[in-house]
Amino acid sequence: LVRVHCVGICNTDLELVRGYYPYVGVPGHEFTGRVEAAPGGEEWIGRRVVGEISAVCHRCPACRAGRGSHCRNRTVLGISGRDGAMAEHLVLPLENLHAIPDGLADETAVFTEPTAAALQIQEQLSIGPGQRVQVIGAGKLGHLVAQTLALTGCDLLVLGRNAARLGLLAGRGIDTDTVDRLKEDEADLVVECTGNPEGFELARKAVRPGGTIVLKSTYRGLVPVPLAPLVVDEITVVGSRCGPFRPAIELLAAGRIDAASLVAERFPLCRGVEAFDRAAEPGVMKVLLDVAG
Amino acid sequence: LVRVHCVGICNTDLELVRGYYPYVGVPGHEFTGRVEAAPGGEEWIGRRVVGEISAVCHRCPACRAGRGSHCRNRTVLGISGRDGAMAEHLVLPLENLHAIPDGLADETAVFTEPTAAALQIQEQLSIGPGQRVQVIGAGKLGHLVAQTLALTGCDLLVLGRNAARLGLLAGRGIDTDTVDRLKEDEADLVVECTGNPEGFELARKAVRPGGTIVLKSTYRGLVPVPLAPLVVDEITVVGSRCGPFRPAIELLAAGRIDAASLVAERFPLCRGVEAFDRAAEPGVMKVLLDVAG
Repeated sequence: LVRVHCVGICNTDLELVRGYYPYVGVPGHEFTGRVEAAPGGEEWIGRRVVGEISAVCHRCPACRAGRGSHCRNRTVLGISGRDGAMAEHLVLPLENLHAIPDGLADETAVFTEPTAAALQIQEQLSIGPGQRVQVIGAGKLGHLVAQTLALTGCDLLVLGRNAARLGLLAGRGIDTDTVDRLKEDEADLVVECTGNPEGFELARKAVRPGGTIVLKSTYRGLVPVPLAPLVVDEITVVGSRCGPFRPAIELLAAGRIDAASLVAERFPLCRGVEAFDRAAEPGVMKVLLDVAG
Repeated sequence: LVRVHCVGICNTDLELVRGYYPYVGVPGHEFTGRVEAAPGGEEWIGRRVVGEISAVCHRCPACRAGRGSHCRNRTVLGISGRDGAMAEHLVLPLENLHAIPDGLADETAVFTEPTAAALQIQEQLSIGPGQRVQVIGAGKLGHLVAQTLALTGCDLLVLGRNAARLGLLAGRGIDTDTVDRLKEDEADLVVECTGNPEGFELARKAVRPGGTIVLKSTYRGLVPVPLAPLVVDEITVVGSRCGPFRPAIELLAAGRIDAASLVAERFPLCRGVEAFDRAAEPGVMKVLLDVAG
């Protein structure tokens, strides 16, 4: 049982409230909080934590094969079958919890889940110096993806539409450009973070033959895809979702990922509806809900 | 300059004559022949050969990066900018040629190009015992893909519609079943060889979360793809095209790949139009054109 401190509003939450997912319940999956009760794990009581969002069965073929994040019987905090973090309390299995160091503020630690999702790309693919990597989309997720990729020493370029957002990245020494200046066949690896299907088409243009497109954002419904060019040009498309929490916490705690500048506004939980409206405005970065201090 | 002996009709050729590609010229890219002239490479004269189909520039970024098969300025035998093998003679760069051993008959060696294409899957992905691999489609390409994958020791299942075609594979000790008995989430790797967009949907159903779909066949136009499930289930989609000729020749020469049983019918070149009609009939395997003996 976790007393919630702080919750981030993510694009998935915005899609949930628009009815794009078949979920009824409390939303919220990016959180920090303090453990209040922990039957069988009393040493956790009082610890400040973040938590992995999938609660898994340990019995299905996916779990037995060590792929718990794809458990067939999983519940997902605030997304599927389990009430989420936009409430005074939430419940997760003990095994999902990660303690966070005292020096790591709630408003930074709350970025653990999306930072872990960004790091998942590096779990799936080997990325390093010499590789030409482009990130398409400079929103909340694009920023975290760009910052985590920059740590690999790859030859990184972020393409976006919003000058202010691109400026934030440029200020961190990351090359940026506007999407209308995208060059075809230039990237070994393209990470699609726009959240809209045109982003996939831009990624297809940017990637070189034999290259890889990572899909980080989801779009509703069917997208018309020219599959034949993927075959002829031998493109690999990699779906990428949740990632490892521990390195995310370490990077945030060490200040190697700047999350603070991504916070657009903070609201108390009682103004949650207003916060969602704000988060849904174009160009707005991360909106946080403060539940308890 | 190669005197052509034998040419295979491939699905790409059938699509060419239907006008699906912007190509005008002599079709044919699966061939065997004998070198008649070779300026600067006289040692090739008289040798029986097969040939890689892309003639590359060695100057563009793809060539300089060692990815000649994706050369931006390439011509492709019988497919793009270069007259193909359904003629008495064809011309290819010397570097494209591979000599074939005396014991390897033309009607077997002519399968080098599609066998190489099947082997490309193993160039792109590591496949071996313990992996559950499904091939969807038991046509010409599906047969070669299945036979090459069987050599890896993987746990292989081929799904098709045509009992006779599946029976051929079963006779070689390969497990088969009908596509209507496809089980969801069962395969670590699915190779799509059907040549139609429903095959992609079947592949999506068959692959487990975190698994890989290899696209070997091309379909015309746009295919409506639900991209979000690819992200949520972290599916990887790999486009796969041409492959390595040398191991293909060795496997065919050693009799480890059975190509002979895939030949449906042979026609002389002068009956080429009739041969194309025959090759386009449903369920017909490889049709060969004999140009010269």
